[in-house]
Amino acid sequence: MSLLVVGSMAFDAIETPFSKTDKIVGGAATYISLAASYFTNDVRLVAVVGGDFPTESVSDLQQRGISTDGLQIKADEKSFFWSGRYHNDMNSRDTLVTELNVLGSFDPLIPDSYQGVRYAMLGNLQPSVQQSVIERLRERPTLIAMDTMNFWMTTTPQELASTIGMIDLLMLNDEEARQLSGQYSLIRAARHIRQMGPRYLIIKKGEHGALLFGDNDEVFFAPALPLEEVFDPTGAGDTFAGGFMGYLAQTDDLSFANLKRAVIAGSALASFCVEKFGTEQLAQLDETQILSRMKELIRLAHVPNPIA
Amino acid sequence: MSLLVVGSMAFDAIETPFSKTDKIVGGAATYISLAASYFTNDVRLVAVVGGDFPTESVSDLQQRGISTDGLQIKADEKSFFWSGRYHNDMNSRDTLVTELNVLGSFDPLIPDSYQGVRYAMLGNLQPSVQQSVIERLRERPTLIAMDTMNFWMTTTPQELASTIGMIDLLMLNDEEARQLSGQYSLIRAARHIRQMGPRYLIIKKGEHGALLFGDNDEVFFAPALPLEEVFDPTGAGDTFAGGFMGYLAQTDDLSFANLKRAVIAGSALASFCVEKFGTEQLAQLDETQILSRMKELIRLAHVPNPIA
Repeated sequence: MSLLVVGSMAFDAIETPFSKTDKIVGGAATYISLAASYFTNDVRLVAVVGGDFPTESVSDLQQRGISTDGLQIKADEKSFFWSGRYHNDMNSRDTLVTELNVLGSFDPLIPDSYQGVRYAMLGNLQPSVQQSVIERLRERPTLIAMDTMNFWMTTTPQELASTIGMIDLLMLNDEEARQLSGQYSLIRAARHIRQMGPRYLIIKKGEHGALLFGDNDEVFFAPALPLEEVFDPTGAGDTFAGGFMGYLAQTDDLSFANLKRAVIAGSALASFCVEKFGTEQLAQLDETQILSRMKELIRLAHVPNPIA
Repeated sequence: MSLLVVGSMAFDAIETPFSKTDKIVGGAATYISLAASYFTNDVRLVAVVGGDFPTESVSDLQQRGISTDGLQIKADEKSFFWSGRYHNDMNSRDTLVTELNVLGSFDPLIPDSYQGVRYAMLGNLQPSVQQSVIERLRERPTLIAMDTMNFWMTTTPQELASTIGMIDLLMLNDEEARQLSGQYSLIRAARHIRQMGPRYLIIKKGEHGALLFGDNDEVFFAPALPLEEVFDPTGAGDTFAGGFMGYLAQTDDLSFANLKRAVIAGSALASFCVEKFGTEQLAQLDETQILSRMKELIRLAHVPNPIA
């Protein structure tokens, strides 16, 4: 099935306790679409970049079967730029620079060839921009998912609430879930957020895994894979989203059991992402590696011969 | 099978963001033996209290089938006292008062009736005291487990290393595992610690679950149950240890599959512990509740129809 991916494409400059990069290609839509491309060959990208964005990076996406018909290239402008420094624990970071550039006036036009798409993943963007994407889809997809961040909870809370009311699945991290709901307990936070509209909620906890909430108090917990080394956490959340939505688009099955498997797919992709800088590892996986890591994740939390 | 439990018994005064207690009965050995008593009816307690310790609290343990032959009561002295205040996130706390009292000169004498015990759980104590217990057991138990804390890593590191070299299973939290090993990655920390002696290692991550490490790179991750409300985390780690060791003593099976089930048993007991102050809920559970929560934990991370 087809998957629409809308989000930022960017240059990132990253410092970790172990190393640092110059400007490398990043952005939510880059990570999401790369990750999803391992599961579905019909990924349709909507994003905006400046004339400074490397054409090879666009070709790399195309070579993975990702449609870039919806990629706007503003030749006279500069691409979105983000720079950040990770703390020693790799779980927290400081933003050093944010230059919106082309992203500041992003108008997400949907090419006609993208209409009728069955799954949609809206990466973190201003909620009004995410909302305009939904409004421009002439046929409602089977599932619309979105990511967001604390910034919009503070600056445009009503716009955010209105957008959340239009979607099927919200993804955010534990801190954001607590801020959005005003509840410390994640069980209560999930109840509150699902009452805002989305049938499904995924709370990402970084190295501590992810929680999926659905109907009838259904909850699923997926561990993150304990790794020898976390090299660069940038893009892990977006990679998770891409793996999750790509798996759903591939399987087209919204049973809770299949949503669980999609979470495992997302976790597997995210585990590869953090082992190298940027998209380095994400751009060159193969299906066998991915399947093997999905099985490893399932084994990790599996209890054999459950108690009678 | 029989389980030896050695550890502190104490008065605790606890402040949480929601409430506070006067002095209530606590201590590692109290939590461990209560939790274990739901799985095995042969728990043998070694601890020390002062004349101020309530006799009813000792009877409560006896009524749950716990042998107190090894409980020393020093009539003219005072019991160990700890007071702490939890931060808003309930994951960190400040110690306000520590009065060792009788614990400062604790000599853990093993009654003859305790010899031949098959499982042993050494709660957090000065490592030399834990070591003297091991030396006083005339027949080596099937499995000796111990808990420890960062304080001993700083003050008596060699004594601690020597004791760790004598046991089969070490339990500590993630921060302690990192400090003990000097490794941030828990995979590397586990490798380092297992090279110090213990065949098995459990890294407790509080609300984020627990990791079990065994031979041949075997790893198991158990989630913590997401709860509506965490009321008081005091004793959760000891309760986990008690449930874990009680389950092992009951089943007497050291296969990795059964160790996983024991971790689930520990997690289930710990989830009850934190829902009330002190031992309040832990003292009045029934087997049906416990089994039901173990199943809930297994379901929480279970992925049906694993990927082919």
